[in-house]
Amino acid sequence: MKPPFTPVKGSVTAAKGFKAGGLAAGIKGGSKKDLALIVSDPPANMAAVFTTNQVKAAPVRVCLAHMSAERTRAIIANSGNANACTGEVGMLHAHAMAAAVARRLGCDDQQVLVCSTGRIGVLLPIVKVEAGIKRLLRRLTPAGAADAAQAIMTSDTFPKQIAVRLRLQGRTVHVGGIAKGAGMIQPNMATMLAFLTTDALVPRAALQQALNLAVGLSFNRLSVDGDTSTNDTVILLANGAAATPPISGGAALRLFQDALNFVCIELAKMIVRDGEGASRFVTVTVSGAESNRDAERAARAVANSSLVKTSWAGADANWGRLMAAIGYSGAVVQESRVSIAYDGIVAVRDGVAVNPWPARVNKIVRGAAFEIRIDLGLGDGVYSMHTCDLTEQYVRLNLGE
Amino acid sequence: MKPPFTPVKGSVTAAKGFKAGGLAAGIKGGSKKDLALIVSDPPANMAAVFTTNQVKAAPVRVCLAHMSAERTRAIIANSGNANACTGEVGMLHAHAMAAAVARRLGCDDQQVLVCSTGRIGVLLPIVKVEAGIKRLLRRLTPAGAADAAQAIMTSDTFPKQIAVRLRLQGRTVHVGGIAKGAGMIQPNMATMLAFLTTDALVPRAALQQALNLAVGLSFNRLSVDGDTSTNDTVILLANGAAATPPISGGAALRLFQDALNFVCIELAKMIVRDGEGASRFVTVTVSGAESNRDAERAARAVANSSLVKTSWAGADANWGRLMAAIGYSGAVVQESRVSIAYDGIVAVRDGVAVNPWPARVNKIVRGAAFEIRIDLGLGDGVYSMHTCDLTEQYVRLNLGE
Repeated sequence: MKPPFTPVKGSVTAAKGFKAGGLAAGIKGGSKKDLALIVSDPPANMAAVFTTNQVKAAPVRVCLAHMSAERTRAIIANSGNANACTGEVGMLHAHAMAAAVARRLGCDDQQVLVCSTGRIGVLLPIVKVEAGIKRLLRRLTPAGAADAAQAIMTSDTFPKQIAVRLRLQGRTVHVGGIAKGAGMIQPNMATMLAFLTTDALVPRAALQQALNLAVGLSFNRLSVDGDTSTNDTVILLANGAAATPPISGGAALRLFQDALNFVCIELAKMIVRDGEGASRFVTVTVSGAESNRDAERAARAVANSSLVKTSWAGADANWGRLMAAIGYSGAVVQESRVSIAYDGIVAVRDGVAVNPWPARVNKIVRGAAFEIRIDLGLGDGVYSMHTCDLTEQYVRLNLGE
Repeated sequence: MKPPFTPVKGSVTAAKGFKAGGLAAGIKGGSKKDLALIVSDPPANMAAVFTTNQVKAAPVRVCLAHMSAERTRAIIANSGNANACTGEVGMLHAHAMAAAVARRLGCDDQQVLVCSTGRIGVLLPIVKVEAGIKRLLRRLTPAGAADAAQAIMTSDTFPKQIAVRLRLQGRTVHVGGIAKGAGMIQPNMATMLAFLTTDALVPRAALQQALNLAVGLSFNRLSVDGDTSTNDTVILLANGAAATPPISGGAALRLFQDALNFVCIELAKMIVRDGEGASRFVTVTVSGAESNRDAERAARAVANSSLVKTSWAGADANWGRLMAAIGYSGAVVQESRVSIAYDGIVAVRDGVAVNPWPARVNKIVRGAAFEIRIDLGLGDGVYSMHTCDLTEQYVRLNLGE
C-alpha cells in the first residue's frame, strides 16, 4: 500500500512559512559550516523531546525553560562545540545565542530555541557565534535548508534531510526535517539533533503526543555505540501556514502522524547508516518475548554488544554472541526455544545451529544491510531496532575530539 | 603495611597435594595447548561462582550439577571451544569430559568439574578431547601449573598465574590461582575462567563465602568490553593438605580472606592489562555517591562506555565523555558538584574544567596506567573498578572467531 504522501525537496523549508540558512561562523575553524538557523513566520506551535541524561548541556536547559513560551519563532544551532559541562558561563552563552536571534527578529528570547553539538567541556567562542548569527539572519531563504543540514553536522559524512507532502483537510501540507547523528547514538536518542517542521496547524498537546510517538518509533530505536549524549534534542514546529483547521484528532491526526513517523524513521535510518565508521546497517527484531519490554531489552543488548558489532564488521555470522547478549540482557530467555534468522534464512532453531549450516547466511552477513530476527519462543513481545557494526574506523574517529 | 604473606611460584600447584598439566589436544589445531587438568589429592572442599548469563554453556550446567558432590577431585578445562549453545550433544560432551577424568582417577563423575572457553555454537571434537585427557592424566606433575595456565588461554597474550604463602594456625599454607580473560569481561565476570587452590582446610560454607567476597572485590570489578559470557567460572579448591585445623572464623579466616583477595585481585588486574588490544590500564574510582550502588552504576557506565574507552586509546583526557557517562548511568548526579582527578591531579571541579587546564593531565593519559577519581559530592558511596581502553586492535581481534 502506497503511503498517501509524496516525498518532496526542501526538508525543513518544504513547509510554507519557514526559512533557513547555515554558514561558517568559525567555531570549527576554517570554512566548515557550523551555525544553522530555522525561522518560522508565523510563530509556530512547538513540541520537543530532550536527552534523558542527567548531565544536560546549557542549550538543553535553555530550551526546557523556553518551552513556556506560547509560540516559537526560531531554532539556532551550532556544531563543533556542545556547550555542555561549561557551568554558568555556558548558560550565559546559550542565553546570548537566543537573545541575538530574538533581538533581530523582534520577538521574546523565549521564542527562540538553542541547540549545540560537538565537544563537551569547552567554552563557546561566543563573539564569533554572535557575529555569525548576525550574518546568518541576513541570509535566510526558503531554500536554505540544505545549508542548515550541513551546518549541524559533526562527524556525519552526509547531511540528513527529508520532506513529504500530503493532503490534509483539503489543504496541501508538508512535514520535513533535518538531523545529525554519527556517534553516541542510543538509547532515547543521543548526540543527535533533529529539527522537524510542518505547515499544518496542530495544537500543542496533540503535537507533543505525536512527536513522542514518532520518536519512540524512530530515534529511540537506534544504536550506534550505546552512549547517550548530554545534548540530544528533537524539536517539531507547526506554524499552521497551510491554513488547515486545527488537527487534533481523528483521521486527519492519524494521517499527520503517519507522515511524521515516516519522516522520523527515515532520518533515524540515515543516522544509523552514517554511524561512525559503520560498514553495515543491521535491523534487529526480537519477537516471541514474554513482553514488549523484554523484547526491547534483548534487542538493545544485541544492538549494543561490542562483541556482536565487531563480528558484523568481520562479516561473521557469530550467532553465539547473539545468544550470549540476549542471555545477559535481563529478558527471560530459554536457550532451547530460541530461533534466529538472517534475512529470513533460519540459522538457529531450538537454540542450536541448523544442520547443515545454511551457507547463504555467510553471504547475507557480508552485505551492506541485513535483518536479524530472534524469536524467543515464549510470548507475544516484539521490538525492533536499527544498529550498525563496530569497525576500526569507529575507534579511529573517536580517539580524540 | 606489608601483607603477612609472601609471593611464591607455582600458582595452582603451590599448595600441597595439587598436580596439574596442560597439552595440545588438537581442539585449536596445531601445537597450541588447549586442554588443562588440575587434580587434588586428597579430595578438596569446593566453592564456585558462575556466569549470571541465562544462556549457560554445557560445562557450566554440569558444574552446577556436580556441586552436589561432597568433595572434588579435579577440574578439566579446554580452550578453543566454549561448548555453549550446543544443545543436548553439548551436554553429553561435557559429561563425557568429566567421566573420562573420573574413570582414570577412580572417583565419581560428580567429583570432576568441567570448563570450556572459546567460540560459541560449535560442537567439541570430543574424540580428540578424550584422547587428550588420557595423555594428560599421565603427565600431571606438581610443576604442571604453567602448562595448565597456558592451556586455558584464548586471545590472552600471556598466562596469568600467582600464588602466595602464609602462616595460618601455626602451619605454612598456600593460596594460588590461574586465570584467562581477554574479551567479554564484565560484569559479574565474563569469558573468564579462574581456578584457585589452597592447602588450608576451610569448611565449605566458609569457603563459598570467602570466594563470593573475593570475587566481588576482583573479577566482578573489571570490564574490558561490557559483555558477559556464557562460560564464566571461578572455582576454589581447598584440600586441607597443610593440616591446619578447620578455618571457619576469627583472625585465621580473615587472614585467609586477605590472601584470597590478593590472589584474585592480582589475577583480575592481569586480565584487564591483557584486555583484547588494550594499550592502557585504567582504574576508575567513584566516590561521594548517594550510595555504594550508585557509585557502582557510575563507575560501570564510565568503564563500559565505548566513547570514553576510545578517547583513552587516543590519549585524550576527554572528561566531557566521563560526565556524559555518569549522567546516563542511573546514579544520582548533580553536574555542579562533580570533581574529577587524574592520578591525583584535579582536572574538573564543580562540574567544569579547572582553569588553567593542568597540563600534567595530558601527560598522565598518555601513560600505560592511570587512575581516575570521580567524586559526585553527594554522599559516602564508593566503588572502584579496573578497565582498559578500546583500540582498533580490539576490533581486529574480534572480527571473526
